Amino acid sequence: MKIIVFGGDGFCGWPTALHLSNKGHKILIVDNLSRRKIDIELGTNSLTPIEDIETRIKTWNKISKNKISFYKLDIAKNYFELKELFKSFKPEAVVHFAEQRSAPYSMKNSSTKSYTVDNNVNATHNILNAIVETRLDCHIVHLGTMGVYGYGWTGKNPIPEGYVKVLVGTTREEKEILHPANPGSVYHMTKTLDQLMFGFYCKNDSLRITDLHQGIVWGTQTDETKLDKKLINRFDYDGDYGTVLNRFLMQAAINHPLTIYGKGGQTRAFINISDTVKCINIAINNPPKKGDRPSIFNQATETRKLSDLAKLISKKTSAKISYVENPRKEDPRNDLVVDNSKFLKLGLKPKTLNEGLMDEVQNITLKYKDRVNLKTIYPTSKWVVK
Amino acid sequence: MKIIVFGGDGFCGWPTALHLSNKGHKILIVDNLSRRKIDIELGTNSLTPIEDIETRIKTWNKISKNKISFYKLDIAKNYFELKELFKSFKPEAVVHFAEQRSAPYSMKNSSTKSYTVDNNVNATHNILNAIVETRLDCHIVHLGTMGVYGYGWTGKNPIPEGYVKVLVGTTREEKEILHPANPGSVYHMTKTLDQLMFGFYCKNDSLRITDLHQGIVWGTQTDETKLDKKLINRFDYDGDYGTVLNRFLMQAAINHPLTIYGKGGQTRAFINISDTVKCINIAINNPPKKGDRPSIFNQATETRKLSDLAKLISKKTSAKISYVENPRKEDPRNDLVVDNSKFLKLGLKPKTLNEGLMDEVQNITLKYKDRVNLKTIYPTSKWVVK
Repeated sequence: MKIIVFGGDGFCGWPTALHLSNKGHKILIVDNLSRRKIDIELGTNSLTPIEDIETRIKTWNKISKNKISFYKLDIAKNYFELKELFKSFKPEAVVHFAEQRSAPYSMKNSSTKSYTVDNNVNATHNILNAIVETRLDCHIVHLGTMGVYGYGWTGKNPIPEGYVKVLVGTTREEKEILHPANPGSVYHMTKTLDQLMFGFYCKNDSLRITDLHQGIVWGTQTDETKLDKKLINRFDYDGDYGTVLNRFLMQAAINHPLTIYGKGGQTRAFINISDTVKCINIAINNPPKKGDRPSIFNQATETRKLSDLAKLISKKTSAKISYVENPRKEDPRNDLVVDNSKFLKLGLKPKTLNEGLMDEVQNITLKYKDRVNLKTIYPTSKWVVK
Repeated sequence: MKIIVFGGDGFCGWPTALHLSNKGHKILIVDNLSRRKIDIELGTNSLTPIEDIETRIKTWNKISKNKISFYKLDIAKNYFELKELFKSFKPEAVVHFAEQRSAPYSMKNSSTKSYTVDNNVNATHNILNAIVETRLDCHIVHLGTMGVYGYGWTGKNPIPEGYVKVLVGTTREEKEILHPANPGSVYHMTKTLDQLMFGFYCKNDSLRITDLHQGIVWGTQTDETKLDKKLINRFDYDGDYGTVLNRFLMQAAINHPLTIYGKGGQTRAFINISDTVKCINIAINNPPKKGDRPSIFNQATETRKLSDLAKLISKKTSAKISYVENPRKEDPRNDLVVDNSKFLKLGLKPKTLNEGLMDEVQNITLKYKDRVNLKTIYPTSKWVVK
């Protein structure tokens, strides 16, 4: 299948492009390299020594019979160039990672808030617009987030996969609705906006769209990125782009206390990067039909309370734990039960935290710990302007 | 009170600015004059001979002791200039009309789709962002649309004012949720995106926001715009910007058959422009408290089936009726009951179609019928790309 991976140079995008290529698909990566530029802006870097995109692709194309190609483009700003790309490449599916994906970065200041909204909304809408205009029958697979749901709305009931049944009005008629949006940051908010755009374009133009509500990703490597050291995936550990578990793992490696925001009563959903790429392949192979509403999967395999997660790592590595003021505006504690049966039914065998954590410490964080910029460990973005 | 009216040169914005000025408020109009530029792009014009913005304001400032000022700015594209404006004017409230507001224009082609999303989302977000950054306690009154609800979701129950009670899950716990979004065009979709942004900024930053879900506006003049002929409000009759009732009234004046899209079974909600400005004044005087969720009013006073509306005008004016292919993708017929009790309780005395229609024909459409550009009467924007 011909597939465009938008944002294919990023943390999830790069291993996804390799995995789909390995599965025999013809892959075109489209990326504006914004993630690398933001590293420069923030004075941080990937813990792992990633190669530039040309070297990455050249390396892959040497060892794989399925070649990947690359096109540098800011899809949020260049609609007509994007449309030309659709017309010439004629993708049968696209994977859409081309959004600013850090919640702290999205809350940093007014410029990063504006950028996140402007970039994410226009990137998504331009893809939708281009598929309608080019009349291609092209399946969109989009990376959403568990954060669209907020926490606790369903109480003791598990968070469903996108849609929830409710009884309405005096007649108590049963309706199935999109789970109400309750985003916790400007970044998460943009993913709730995406959902409404998907709903409209499915209804009006019968586009085929899969939205994957992903948990917090941890880990670095996949079967494909391990094939050559020049294919190594990025690992973010800084206060803005480092996801919580990866931050803990890096901190454990350098004997820095694990920094819990608040008291750690927040329960979150997690997934390993190697499961991310498998989920996307499964989604590509199981598209919705024309005329269907957006097909939504919860792409998460385990839930953990953050304090439990820190204790688990502390136990395995002897790292200390420190509690820092929570820069976010969020409930101090919550329960979380997630329905993820759709991916499990389609054959996903999750990699658990228990089996993968120490591999990550030994092969990534200990190995590259000398590359850490200590100044970027603590969070600097605050949720509320004082 | 110091109030900025964003989009204060437009069809609703101009009479609102005058009405609020007349009520004693200090008004700053901020507008990029995009509506006038789109007239040029579409080769159409206001049926009424509107003056340029400078003449309008000069005229008002001669007859009123409350002066209006004007600042030309594209707020979607110039965040920092907008922020400076907030810092220097220090508004206690803003009225936000600065969005592309035609559904057909938003569906015309890929450029108008992109423009509508880009302009409307960024305009709204920049206002929110600027209020947070300047730490002003400024109430936002936003013009939403009845179209966010779609039609028929509540069945025989009236469409509530923004929020709907539902029972959830096996425990049947009662929750009040934002009415599920079901927009019928890219334009309407942007207003559903606005709603989610408002929800987030109320939650995270305790902004005070009122969202007015307005029905289809008809009529031209208000008490203030009638005070001098140079204050006359615009009247759009073309296939893109002309709202259905105003189009019918213009067609009746020039002995053109009233053009019903489809069979006219669509029921819609209406409001007269003179009630629009009163509603906004009421909203300004009844702000939500800090910490409240967005306060939502349904700003509509009557519902009519489009075929009944055409018959009513036909009966009063002897105009013929013609049925044209519906360019929109919408249900051919629907019921519609709208809860608008919040404005009624706060004192709104609606102007009915029965009392206002003929005045509109005599004083507007018959008077200015020679200004009609006949080429722009029929709809050209289609909802589905063939």
